[in-house]
Parts: sequence; C-alpha cells; structure tokens
Amino acid sequence: MKPVIVRTIDELRERVRGLRKQGHTVGLVPTMGALHAGHLSLVQAAKADGHKVIVSIFVNPTQFNDPKDLDKYPRDEAADVALLAPLGVDIVWAPDVDEMYADGFSTTVSVSGVSEGLCGATRPGHFDGVATVVTKLLLQAQADAAYFGQKDFQQLAVINRFVTDLNIPVEIVGCPILREDDGLAMSSRNVRLSETGRKTAPALFLALSKAAEDIESGNDVTRVLAHASKSLLEAGFTSIDYLELRASDNLSPMAQFDRPARLFAAAFLGDVRLIDNVVVKGR
Amino acid sequence: MKPVIVRTIDELRERVRGLRKQGHTVGLVPTMGALHAGHLSLVQAAKADGHKVIVSIFVNPTQFNDPKDLDKYPRDEAADVALLAPLGVDIVWAPDVDEMYADGFSTTVSVSGVSEGLCGATRPGHFDGVATVVTKLLLQAQADAAYFGQKDFQQLAVINRFVTDLNIPVEIVGCPILREDDGLAMSSRNVRLSETGRKTAPALFLALSKAAEDIESGNDVTRVLAHASKSLLEAGFTSIDYLELRASDNLSPMAQFDRPARLFAAAFLGDVRLIDNVVVKGR
Repeated sequence: MKPVIVRTIDELRERVRGLRKQGHTVGLVPTMGALHAGHLSLVQAAKADGHKVIVSIFVNPTQFNDPKDLDKYPRDEAADVALLAPLGVDIVWAPDVDEMYADGFSTTVSVSGVSEGLCGATRPGHFDGVATVVTKLLLQAQADAAYFGQKDFQQLAVINRFVTDLNIPVEIVGCPILREDDGLAMSSRNVRLSETGRKTAPALFLALSKAAEDIESGNDVTRVLAHASKSLLEAGFTSIDYLELRASDNLSPMAQFDRPARLFAAAFLGDVRLIDNVVVKGR
Repeated sequence: MKPVIVRTIDELRERVRGLRKQGHTVGLVPTMGALHAGHLSLVQAAKADGHKVIVSIFVNPTQFNDPKDLDKYPRDEAADVALLAPLGVDIVWAPDVDEMYADGFSTTVSVSGVSEGLCGATRPGHFDGVATVVTKLLLQAQADAAYFGQKDFQQLAVINRFVTDLNIPVEIVGCPILREDDGLAMSSRNVRLSETGRKTAPALFLALSKAAEDIESGNDVTRVLAHASKSLLEAGFTSIDYLELRASDNLSPMAQFDRPARLFAAAFLGDVRLIDNVVVKGR
C-alpha cells in the first residue's frame, strides 16, 4: 500500500491522533530523502518494534553550513516514496520549508559537549540545526520511538543528549551502519562520487578497521592514527577533515585506549565529504 | 484535599498517565513558589478551563544571572502547599535541582528577537534559562495547557515564541496581572521591600498608567517617557533599568505610537528590582 503523503502539521497530528485512537504506537524515521538501504533498515527496525511508521523527508536548510552542499543535496521524492511503499510505511511527512519554519521563527536548540569537535568543529551551526529540526520533528509527530543510523554517530549522541535533557517523551533507537559489499558506509552523498571516487571510497572503512585493530592490539594511538591518515591520502582521498579516537559514551577525546571507544573519520574525495566510524573493542 | 507532592519525573508521568486514562486533561501552572494571589488566579483559570491542575514549584538556578538574587529568592514550600490545598490542585511538582538537571546536562533552548532588550538586555542568560526550564516542565507534565501571568509579559512572549517554533503540543494561556489595592503588581519579590520601599512601589504602576494615558492622548512618546522616568526617581526609586514602548505582538521597539503597544518598566528600590507593564490603548 502506498503511504499517504502529508504536507501540513495539522494533518500530521490528526492522522497520528487517529492511529493512537486505534491503539497503535508510532515510530518516526527522520530522513532528508535520497533514501538508500540504510534508511530502509531503520523503517524495518520501527516495523519490527510493532509501530505504525512515519518517515519524514525534509532537507533541512539550517543544518547545512555550506550553501553549495545544500544545493547539491540529492532530492527525488517520487523515487523515495516508491522505495517506501513495499515496506508498509503509513505516513510520509514531507513539509516544505515554510511549513517547517514559519514567519518569525527564532528558536534554537543547542547542545554543548558531545556536539564539539569532529563534525561540530568543521561544520559551524550544523548540530544546532540538527537539534532544532529533530526536536520539531519529534514533537510534530509525537512519536513513541524514533530511529537513527549510527553512521552519524555524533548526531545520534547529540540527539540522545537533548532528548534526555529536555525530557522529550520519546525512545531514541540507534541502528547499525549499513555498508556496501566493499565496506563503504551507505550515504545519500555517495551518488555524488565520481567513478574513480567511488572506487577509492571504501578505503575509508578499511583504514578505520585496520586502525581499530591496531589500537585493540595495544599500539600507540597517535602513531596508528598518523599511519591511517597517510594511507587514506595515498589511497586517493583529497584531504582529511578529522580522524580521532573518542569515548563511546560522551565523545570526549582520548589520547590512550583506556575505556570503550570509537574511531571517527571525515574525509574529502574532491568536493564530496564522507564520514564513517567503527567501534574499538576492548580486550 | 491536599495536593500530592511529586519529586521525580517518573512519578509525575505515571500520575499524568493515570489522569489521562480517566479522561482528564491537564493544566500546568509553572511557578518558582513564594505563591501569592497572582499565582492562585492562574490555578483558578486552569480549573475554570476544566483541567486537572499541576502546579510546579522550582526555583530555577539557570535563569538567575545574579547569584545574590537566587540566594534571596523567598522559599517556603509548606506555606505554598497550604495556599494551594483549598483550590483543589491535584499535583504539586517540586523536583530538586539534581532531578531537573541531571549529570551531564548540556542543552539550551534560546529565542532571538522577543528576548532581546528589556529584561533580556540587563539579565544576560535569563531568557535562555527560562526557555530551557519551561520546555522541560511542559514536556515533563505533557500538559494540554499552561498558564502564565502577564506581569512577565516578555517571558510570556518568549514562551509563546518557542512553543510555536518547536511545535510543543500545548496551549499557552496568558492571564491578567493581579494588583494590590494601591496598584502594585503582585510579585514574589514584593516581600523583600522595606516599609518605605513598599510605600514607594505603587508609583511604578501609577507612572506607567499616566504615561500610557499621555501617549494615548497623542503626546510625544520620548517626552512622555522622560517625564515618567523623572517622576519615578522623584517618588523614591533608586534607579530605572528600562522604561520603553514596545509593539504588543513581537515586542519590537517603537519611537511612535502607531500600532498596538505596551509600556514596559523595570526599576530598583534599593536592591529589589520590580517590573510592570500596561497596555496602551489605540483611539
């Protein structure tokens, strides 16, 4: 069955009220469209938890620090809806920018701590934009649960933080990264890679995995990260935005591997910026 | 019947769920305690709208820019509860600071525009503190409606702004200022006035009322405000924080009276800061 496409907050709320009256719970999958198998796995997780599913499609201008990145962000609603239809999605929530940010809009939700460094350092304002729009989406849909991928692990940490801090009555569910056969983390930005870029791209996951292994084996963190950086540039990455070991819980920087951790990287292939992260397992 | 006093978010939510299951709606009256007839009128408004009533009592440290003001803020929970009992309040929500701001708390809700100038100019961080704690209270109680006095008119404008912007599913109800017989706006800070200060204090409302009348009669705004300032200092006020004409809707400054407006003032009597505001009627 094709999902119903909703354009106004009033209609969304009316439909959610209707679902609740019938005794259903509601799971929200926030997306910026350009859906791929990673997004679909979030829908499947929400279905598996027994929810009626709302997928929001909204390319949020306030989280793009670079207007060119916003311009180039892939958009194809018809294709997205076609992908969602077979999964039994109930509602596609696809407001336009004016419905989302009405005249006089002047509120910001911001998170310190977990939002600092990594993507927060090189994308000023990005996480304020994310926190504000996700707060809105959660409260518009009044969802029982919301599903996010771990590829944007720092984003997930920011969302967990403000949902806890503001007492938003929703369960946040973080889902595993989906990868192509060659290891490349699925991302809407992958379609913008050149043919050569696409061949180089899996080096990011390979370098992270190798570095995680070397850190797990007790090698010096600084030396391992320096080696991983070098290997990325040699593989053909244009530049490295960051490559860092951080604590799993609060994302604080770690010079030594002495508690649960993840490795985070962002790197450019031409003008396409890719991010990825892997867990570093304790012995 | 005495209201039940609740100290944890979990218990609050359980009780609210219970009320909803019985088919009730919920009205929230956020306060910092030190209750007076103004607060009680908010409770009565919530009752008149047919809600079960939650009164929150929480002296929010993050909205005090001056630690001395926080120290001196009057606190007497037993007296507050005694005042609420005859009104049929269902729940007093009185968390301690650790329940409200758990370890690692790092989120801020901030509003630009309406929060600028007036109290926003002289109390840095004040409205961030208000917006953040009121967002929390609204989402903790999941109230259908929340009641605020118009004495803190700018605060009410800030709250209306972020509730609209963040799509918080609650109706915000602004209630008229309650005044003593001599015109002094009721305020928890009034008990801190000296005997002389208490006698001088009504001059604030008198000066605002006279200025509003003069502006309504077509007199020059700048001249009227200068005269009102002079009369306040002559009456015995120590200093004037602000005295301004602002647009009723978005609180933008007005040099001329050409649309719906209010007059706003803040002034000191010794170390006690009083605020008040009056509507300026169109002809």
